[in-house]
Amino acid sequence: MTTEQIGKGLQLRTLVKHSGVLELSLVEVETPTPKADEVIVRVEAAPINPSDLGLLFGGADMSTAKASGTADRPVITASIPQNVLKSMAGRFDESLPAGNEGAGVVVAAGESPAAQALLGKVVAILGGAMYAQYRCMRASQCLVLPQGTTPAEGASCFVNPLTALGMVETMRLEGHKALVHTAAASNLGQMLVKICLKDGVPLVNVVRKQEQVELLKSIGAQHVCNASAPDFMEQLTEALVATGATIAFDATGGGRLAGQILTCMEAALNRTAKEFSRYGSTTHKQVYIYGGLERSPTELNRNFGMAWGIGGWLLTPFLQKIGPAAAQQLRERVAAEIKTTFASSYTRVVPLREVLTLEAIADYGAQATGHKYLINPNG
Amino acid sequence: MTTEQIGKGLQLRTLVKHSGVLELSLVEVETPTPKADEVIVRVEAAPINPSDLGLLFGGADMSTAKASGTADRPVITASIPQNVLKSMAGRFDESLPAGNEGAGVVVAAGESPAAQALLGKVVAILGGAMYAQYRCMRASQCLVLPQGTTPAEGASCFVNPLTALGMVETMRLEGHKALVHTAAASNLGQMLVKICLKDGVPLVNVVRKQEQVELLKSIGAQHVCNASAPDFMEQLTEALVATGATIAFDATGGGRLAGQILTCMEAALNRTAKEFSRYGSTTHKQVYIYGGLERSPTELNRNFGMAWGIGGWLLTPFLQKIGPAAAQQLRERVAAEIKTTFASSYTRVVPLREVLTLEAIADYGAQATGHKYLINPNG
Repeated sequence: MTTEQIGKGLQLRTLVKHSGVLELSLVEVETPTPKADEVIVRVEAAPINPSDLGLLFGGADMSTAKASGTADRPVITASIPQNVLKSMAGRFDESLPAGNEGAGVVVAAGESPAAQALLGKVVAILGGAMYAQYRCMRASQCLVLPQGTTPAEGASCFVNPLTALGMVETMRLEGHKALVHTAAASNLGQMLVKICLKDGVPLVNVVRKQEQVELLKSIGAQHVCNASAPDFMEQLTEALVATGATIAFDATGGGRLAGQILTCMEAALNRTAKEFSRYGSTTHKQVYIYGGLERSPTELNRNFGMAWGIGGWLLTPFLQKIGPAAAQQLRERVAAEIKTTFASSYTRVVPLREVLTLEAIADYGAQATGHKYLINPNG
Repeated sequence: MTTEQIGKGLQLRTLVKHSGVLELSLVEVETPTPKADEVIVRVEAAPINPSDLGLLFGGADMSTAKASGTADRPVITASIPQNVLKSMAGRFDESLPAGNEGAGVVVAAGESPAAQALLGKVVAILGGAMYAQYRCMRASQCLVLPQGTTPAEGASCFVNPLTALGMVETMRLEGHKALVHTAAASNLGQMLVKICLKDGVPLVNVVRKQEQVELLKSIGAQHVCNASAPDFMEQLTEALVATGATIAFDATGGGRLAGQILTCMEAALNRTAKEFSRYGSTTHKQVYIYGGLERSPTELNRNFGMAWGIGGWLLTPFLQKIGPAAAQQLRERVAAEIKTTFASSYTRVVPLREVLTLEAIADYGAQATGHKYLINPNG
């Protein structure tokens, strides 16, 4: 240890009680003394991503949320529906930290040269427990941001950028030449538009509002289909014929959208087919569900032949599959393009205590495009 | 040609008119003179499999079926719903033969030694157009049945046996150690029970009636779950814990069953999990839909984490994937065990003209276990 001791810091905690109650609170935790290869990061920016909400809310019905505690130490409680509670048994009565990713300044470092070299640097981290004032982390797990990058600019270096890059890589690995993305006006969706423009990959964007069509076209998207339009299926089929996309990444999960995409892919393939195939097109059509914005059941009409698949897609298993060297290449691309391709925008920047207000929960909990929060735990 | 000329023979035809009418009929066709490497098979047995009905009925609503023609040359017409008709465009106004597989006696042969060697032999064929009195076929495509096997015994040598073997092979290839099968009391299901007993593969059978539970237990099945029982989900979860099955083959397709299987797999995996995983079990759970006995939409509640997949499964792409040598090994196993593991049973044996009666269509068209027809085109 060559740097000053950091005392205590606040950390956001999520607790699922076996009685079926969720409790969110702030607790004061001792900041550890970093080991030789570790650093202490003063977290200054951590986004609330849809992928954080599962752990944070523990399946609770947030319309039942109640506020208590004080302004500085707010407490939120909410009830967890009985049918969901079962799947939470593994975390009963354990107070868990949250926050997948974030960025901050290295304010203390262990004695190893690698750790010492990070002192004063702005770094991004994917490691959990980022909704906290301080985070102890292995030096090797810190992504050093280019000179002049602020923690706010680097807060979303991993989840959205690597997911967007992972979609394009998955498309290539599985032998497709173009892709479809839903909820495409999101931060992640806009990154994907920029990646595909840069890499020359044809992309079909699916959104739900006309203003989102215009937003995506304004940043260069060529194919944008509005799922709320009466001629959505025709729009989508035309875009699939034009691009040849046979793989899709769906953030909504529930409802008919995943099945509609497969139906339109099949229609697009059959339009150019040379002869009747009794089991439908023999070209494999794939939809990966990577989110659950729409909580209703997924409904498939199965009018898309037999060569199809639907499945879950997650970033971590994808990174494991491609291996550490390939994953590191993706991370370095993100760092290099953090102010352009991978720039994020947020609706509000809030301190930890404001994350635990009913008003904020109703806002960021809706997971709607344009309601994205950034936490500054030291703000 | 060294053998007698065969004149004409009847062939069952299915025709989808662009006007939306299905027409089934019998036509007299000239039996070709076999080329050097071809033989003429007098077809004596061809099953009506679920996989034949798609081509046969062309998506028509068979409750609208009307009979006309004569007793010897019956004609059936039925209307095709508008939403299905589109997908039939590739076969509009083309009279197509039907019948995936069957068996018969070689009654004429081309001059090649391979063809000549088959004269008089009982052979099984997977080649389409088997609902006919005569079928011209390449000698190399004929599976010679063991001495003493009748065409009726060898009629179902391919579709069900290779599908059942293909399920076990797919399970192995994709790294699972046990499997689930639905509609498990079918001919195919009974074969699968026998294969799994013989090969020591744990199998979970899902049926819909208590008498089917007893039927499968009587042939040695260890795990049989009744989807109609109020405690079906508990039954299934217990069987999944006991077997460790993480792959399923579902013949029903529609409704909630595929999703229920994934839900129970996840519950079984979590029961033995050591720590809470926020995205659910990391073990991949797979359901392949290989049939459509239940025509309603597939409904998935997605309460089974993120490591899951659902997709179509078909025999032909599977055989292409494993390659000709492996496929031939499977065929030889079927021929060797055709009277034991791969024995089929039929409810009725009918001549071609009886396939085209309203009564028969209502019966075999229901695709219910115990309503299986065998056609003897020369009966």
